[in-house]
Amino acid sequence: MNLSRRLTAEMIGTFWLVFGGCGSAVLAAAFPALGIGFAGVALAFGLTVLTMAFAIGHVSGCHLNPAVSLGLTVAGRFPRRDLLPYIGAQVLGAVLGAAILWIIASGHAGFDPVGSGFATNGYGERSPGHYSMLASFVCEAVMTAGFLFVILGATDERAPSGFAPIAIGLCLTLIHLVTIPVTNTSVNPARSTGPALFVGGEAIQQLWLFWVAPLVGAVVAGVIYPVIARKR
Amino acid sequence: MNLSRRLTAEMIGTFWLVFGGCGSAVLAAAFPALGIGFAGVALAFGLTVLTMAFAIGHVSGCHLNPAVSLGLTVAGRFPRRDLLPYIGAQVLGAVLGAAILWIIASGHAGFDPVGSGFATNGYGERSPGHYSMLASFVCEAVMTAGFLFVILGATDERAPSGFAPIAIGLCLTLIHLVTIPVTNTSVNPARSTGPALFVGGEAIQQLWLFWVAPLVGAVVAGVIYPVIARKR
Amino acid sequence: MNLSRRLTAEMIGTFWLVFGGCGSAVLAAAFPALGIGFAGVALAFGLTVLTMAFAIGHVSGCHLNPAVSLGLTVAGRFPRRDLLPYIGAQVLGAVLGAAILWIIASGHAGFDPVGSGFATNGYGERSPGHYSMLASFVCEAVMTAGFLFVILGATDERAPSGFAPIAIGLCLTLIHLVTIPVTNTSVNPARSTGPALFVGGEAIQQLWLFWVAPLVGAVVAGVIYPVIARKR
Amino acid sequence: MNLSRRLTAEMIGTFWLVFGGCGSAVLAAAFPALGIGFAGVALAFGLTVLTMAFAIGHVSGCHLNPAVSLGLTVAGRFPRRDLLPYIGAQVLGAVLGAAILWIIASGHAGFDPVGSGFATNGYGERSPGHYSMLASFVCEAVMTAGFLFVILGATDERAPSGFAPIAIGLCLTLIHLVTIPVTNTSVNPARSTGPALFVGGEAIQQLWLFWVAPLVGAVVAGVIYPVIARKR
Repeated sequence: MNLSRRLTAEMIGTFWLVFGGCGSAVLAAAFPALGIGFAGVALAFGLTVLTMAFAIGHVSGCHLNPAVSLGLTVAGRFPRRDLLPYIGAQVLGAVLGAAILWIIASGHAGFDPVGSGFATNGYGERSPGHYSMLASFVCEAVMTAGFLFVILGATDERAPSGFAPIAIGLCLTLIHLVTIPVTNTSVNPARSTGPALFVGGEAIQQLWLFWVAPLVGAVVAGVIYPVIARKR
Repeated sequence: MNLSRRLTAEMIGTFWLVFGGCGSAVLAAAFPALGIGFAGVALAFGLTVLTMAFAIGHVSGCHLNPAVSLGLTVAGRFPRRDLLPYIGAQVLGAVLGAAILWIIASGHAGFDPVGSGFATNGYGERSPGHYSMLASFVCEAVMTAGFLFVILGATDERAPSGFAPIAIGLCLTLIHLVTIPVTNTSVNPARSTGPALFVGGEAIQQLWLFWVAPLVGAVVAGVIYPVIARKR
Repeated sequence: MNLSRRLTAEMIGTFWLVFGGCGSAVLAAAFPALGIGFAGVALAFGLTVLTMAFAIGHVSGCHLNPAVSLGLTVAGRFPRRDLLPYIGAQVLGAVLGAAILWIIASGHAGFDPVGSGFATNGYGERSPGHYSMLASFVCEAVMTAGFLFVILGATDERAPSGFAPIAIGLCLTLIHLVTIPVTNTSVNPARSTGPALFVGGEAIQQLWLFWVAPLVGAVVAGVIYPVIARKR
Repeated sequence: MNLSRRLTAEMIGTFWLVFGGCGSAVLAAAFPALGIGFAGVALAFGLTVLTMAFAIGHVSGCHLNPAVSLGLTVAGRFPRRDLLPYIGAQVLGAVLGAAILWIIASGHAGFDPVGSGFATNGYGERSPGHYSMLASFVCEAVMTAGFLFVILGATDERAPSGFAPIAIGLCLTLIHLVTIPVTNTSVNPARSTGPALFVGGEAIQQLWLFWVAPLVGAVVAGVIYPVIARKR
């Protein structure tokens, strides 16, 4: 399919991931008495991927995440020449998602993006539970490796057909259920970049970790899965 | 299939959406100590659509929502001549759902539909988090566009067969996880109309937004999806 | 398949429904600080049906509920001669489930089955939210009708194949998300009977409603669905 | 497929189960105000199995649990000669999962593995709700029997194809929704062993129960299911 339409699909899908996932955190997680908490945010992030994977899997593959595109490339499932365009579209979509979320959140008296964090990722003082940089790096790298391992396995031609969006979306839910306290959960450099650009300052200074650790994890899984699962 | 039976199915399905979704909000969300909160309401709304889509998808298509019927019409997936009858059946079902809910809720001492809101949608003072009219409009329009985009994608003949009820139902859950604090979440003019008729007053004065914004979003998605996903 | 093995499957399945569903309510719902609440109980009840429907659907049809067996009989989907044996096996399984739950719950100091209710259903003073008998009856009848409507639709030969356990299990979750505050949610006379026999007294005096209302609802759906969904 | 690659898959999968499931309990369950609670932990454990079953079901069968491997062997579905190697790989993976979790949890000031329990299983004084040894044994044995019954049924050739990971993963969620208060939920000797080795002391003294009770339950189900479900 035409590259520009695939890139538009990736942009819309990553918009949805950031708007829906970060939106649930910014707007609903801590609502007094009835808020959805970390478990609700975890479900929301997973469902952004589950829904878009059914909606645009047949258009662009629905990566929505530079680490996913890189891991698939390493595993030989995605053409190298499309990697950078995909990443560009994903980052653009993430920025748009954060922008629309900003507009809506601004419609609420007392909106304080820097104080509240605006769903940015962080480590050390900016970690929700004040986890160290090392713990945060290990957490992001291991979780992204697991995410890519599940993606590569669930889209293997021997896995049950049609279920990959469920496996992959709910895998992102699982990852959030475990790691929101550590880094606010990235495993996705585009998702980290969108809100950080709006918050600025330390959020941007810490952004490197949320590019490096997920990409490292993705490469590891992209190397390991094909070895374990090869047919002979 | 016979139009009158399809309309009956739409009426029953929309009854189920309003009775189940709004019912969870009115009866269970704020129950002391053990209540289901916004996350439980989000799950309930999504499951009304998931369950009915498996139950009557083969009868009427299971739209249960004027914005869905309009978006499908714009995308060329639904015959224009059936649009108004479908919308009528959906609104009628929504009113019936609110009526049965009213009967049950009245069986509880201290039932106060106006004070509690009876699960109506609202903006400004009537928004759960007091979000402005502009933020509420943007939120409803963008979310309905995303909802239709997922519906059009998940029912595309290239998407995995049989999974659309899961994708679409859980998409409605996602939308609620994000936006209950903003508007109490509509993305469905029929769902907004049912309870509003029982509460009256400001709930009806604000009803226009929950028709206009979702229908605008639906038209946008109905135009965009076919362009992005076209086969050549 | 051999009737005695089908009955054994129904007994085991209904054991699982009562042990798992009521068990989540008795053991985990109100655990200090981290308890699962009504939403967790709703999920547990639904998952008992989802899991058993995949496990024994091919053995007995996995009704686990006298109202389901009756509704299927009315709709012409289940042979009349098997109805009473199925109901007997279901009630027996429910009693066994409550018995094992009693043994486990007794291993906790301060277990008070009468005071806590032991997950029995009730109306009026015995309703969690003190809903009237009329509200409780309407609620149980309407919800069981919706449940059977979804069951009949999701197992229709035109519905997507294989998904019925998901639709039906999550429908039971939905029903609980709405109605635990009203009656503690039955829609299943066997599920109501098991715990009531152990609690005795008023729990047994109120048991009639949780047989009559669900069976009425099931008959209504068993009549309506085939009319709406008939092929010509 | 080559045994060493199947064992690697089991090791990675059980790593994921312990890291994700126990990780959600250690890192996120009791986070102030927004923590995921027992329901979130229940979901996390189930999703580790659901995701890995889609990812490596076609490689190793994705048991991730000595009780599962034993139950399948008893039921004639798994070759006896692979049983001990599988159990070894599972225990090794569980230990690795606990190790990585330890590294991350240590990045948080005030990490107290012995005081917090580090997600170990326990009975009596070490049971979250102080349930007796007898209640804990019955609970683990009955739940593992139910788990194996669902596994054997959902992977029966007559069950809907492709859905087993959903049925089995969500069955583990169900089991946790009911039994975290009793034993912190094992039904899996490998999952119990991993964290216990890091906590030591009483956690290891109680480990016998979390091997014996699940294995007993698994054998019971491995005997019963084939009788009930046999084709003639």
